[in-house]
Amino acid sequence: MSRSPNKLNVHALKWQDGQLSILDQRKLPEQVQYNHYVTAPEVAEAITDMQVRGAPAIGIAAAYAVALSVRQHYVTDKAAWKSLLAADMALLAASRPTAVNLFWALNKMQTQLDSIAGNPIAALQALAEQIHQQDITANQTMGTIGADILADAQGLLTHCNAGALATGGYGTALGVIRSAYASQTRQVFAGETRPWLQGARLTVWELSEDAIPATLIADSAAAILMQQGKIDWVIVGADRIAANGDVANKIGTYALAVLAKYHGVKLMVVAPTSTIDFAMAAGSQIAIEQRAESEFLPDCYAQAGSLVSAWNPVFDVTPAELIDVIVTERGAIFEPAKSGVAHLSD
Amino acid sequence: MSRSPNKLNVHALKWQDGQLSILDQRKLPEQVQYNHYVTAPEVAEAITDMQVRGAPAIGIAAAYAVALSVRQHYVTDKAAWKSLLAADMALLAASRPTAVNLFWALNKMQTQLDSIAGNPIAALQALAEQIHQQDITANQTMGTIGADILADAQGLLTHCNAGALATGGYGTALGVIRSAYASQTRQVFAGETRPWLQGARLTVWELSEDAIPATLIADSAAAILMQQGKIDWVIVGADRIAANGDVANKIGTYALAVLAKYHGVKLMVVAPTSTIDFAMAAGSQIAIEQRAESEFLPDCYAQAGSLVSAWNPVFDVTPAELIDVIVTERGAIFEPAKSGVAHLSD
Repeated sequence: MSRSPNKLNVHALKWQDGQLSILDQRKLPEQVQYNHYVTAPEVAEAITDMQVRGAPAIGIAAAYAVALSVRQHYVTDKAAWKSLLAADMALLAASRPTAVNLFWALNKMQTQLDSIAGNPIAALQALAEQIHQQDITANQTMGTIGADILADAQGLLTHCNAGALATGGYGTALGVIRSAYASQTRQVFAGETRPWLQGARLTVWELSEDAIPATLIADSAAAILMQQGKIDWVIVGADRIAANGDVANKIGTYALAVLAKYHGVKLMVVAPTSTIDFAMAAGSQIAIEQRAESEFLPDCYAQAGSLVSAWNPVFDVTPAELIDVIVTERGAIFEPAKSGVAHLSD
Repeated sequence: MSRSPNKLNVHALKWQDGQLSILDQRKLPEQVQYNHYVTAPEVAEAITDMQVRGAPAIGIAAAYAVALSVRQHYVTDKAAWKSLLAADMALLAASRPTAVNLFWALNKMQTQLDSIAGNPIAALQALAEQIHQQDITANQTMGTIGADILADAQGLLTHCNAGALATGGYGTALGVIRSAYASQTRQVFAGETRPWLQGARLTVWELSEDAIPATLIADSAAAILMQQGKIDWVIVGADRIAANGDVANKIGTYALAVLAKYHGVKLMVVAPTSTIDFAMAAGSQIAIEQRAESEFLPDCYAQAGSLVSAWNPVFDVTPAELIDVIVTERGAIFEPAKSGVAHLSD
């Protein structure tokens, strides 16, 4: 049996020859197409449009975008480059509201920039590459830690896409599943994840690229799988984790957490510490992005005078009480409701 | 403000001039198209293909199909008509497995047939029409009973389509919502109901046809609505109710029941007694229909050698313990786990 769950053969982002290539995830699984960018506003638009999505991947894309912005403006306009860069960074910060990694990466780039007197181009490019590489390393570390916790668990359910496509590579939740599958076969289920279908379009594609069989389910079928005893662990990523351990993640995660608790199924959240918002005390403060009705409202209801509307929050907040373990690259926190995650701060 | 929530202006089925017209629900909401049938096998196919769906509507369609079969075969083949009819009834019985109303209607037609010595055409047609009319009357009765129980409740969430489109007219769960809305404005939410999108395509269309504003949500957003205190009641129909009060209904109902219990939200099941399978002791015995992977698996995974599969159960079973009230045309049963529903048998 030839399988390679540990290979890094799916890449959301590539940095080559001074340009950022973004895998257009809107076109998966039918088409693998990279778009190439050399300016920050283009990257901000690619984030908003969800060519690239997933909290860690958004952060890395933003870091590269800052490097692109510095290179563009420092060379062409020595007088105004800092204000042009600030405008680009404001655009990037406004591209998506919920994933904290975006702001974390922008802050890291800004701090580095502030420490440089001369030409900042090379240093900022190197930092973006380092952020990217450290994310991959963190994912592999989390994969090992998480797989160890899963032990011989057979039935694994994931939601949305917290894989290589959502990160620098390897993945958070899918990184754990990759590492776990490398040691023994598991039954992997993926919720299709309405409205954007990250599960159907990205997660099962990514798993099959790595030779891991997966079964797709409608999101609302997760409960009956649990009722039948087919799920041991629900494993998800995170878009932002508050200091008390509350987790914002893709809409539907909170429902899975409640269902898991009811059925005695365990819930693992996998995220690098760059996803922790140490300044935010509790999940209730997290801004939840509302996206367009058109993501799932049939066109015929979008006319003036229509009595039909849609409500499209794309994240929800799962209280720490419902989470069994949060896995980070700095270690696993069991029962995060007891201790929070603030002590992971460096 | 002109609104007419109590009008019967949506019809899944029409019986006119000896032919059955079926509203093709696969084409809603974009297109309102009736297909016309004069033989039972065509109707069986329309049920399997989900031109008509919803337990009561399936039963009524099957009753009319038996009337069509009798008329066709009794006239043309006096010797063999009973075996030709039996073959048609077998086809109808095999068209969908979960909704008990189908078998209930076939049994009623068979019993009537067995009691007739001469030409059965007129009597069977009359019985089919009576089954249809009695369903509408039952829905209106349930609407009144259910609305009375809701009292001033504001936030109502329904799942799938248990409306006029799923019944002879007026609807079960949507009948209650219609009656409740007629007395005062409510906030009505509808889950889109993957994979077939009955909520997005049928429920909000039907509500807007009756001037009732509705908000569509992704199924997995129901939990956050409950978390925010925006839902007072979840109101659903049923495809089969066991004697102990367990309820088979559209996939996702069980998840909503667990989520409702967790959040202190009430759950109402609305169904005529024709949906009760008095011979079935408990919900665990109910056959759950599995439909094709292609209903939500992207085509690219359907190739030979694909590692990606889909699991598509289209119903689930909610234990009576999670149900606050079952509303039938013979009255409401509160806490059905305590008494079951067997005493509703006539």
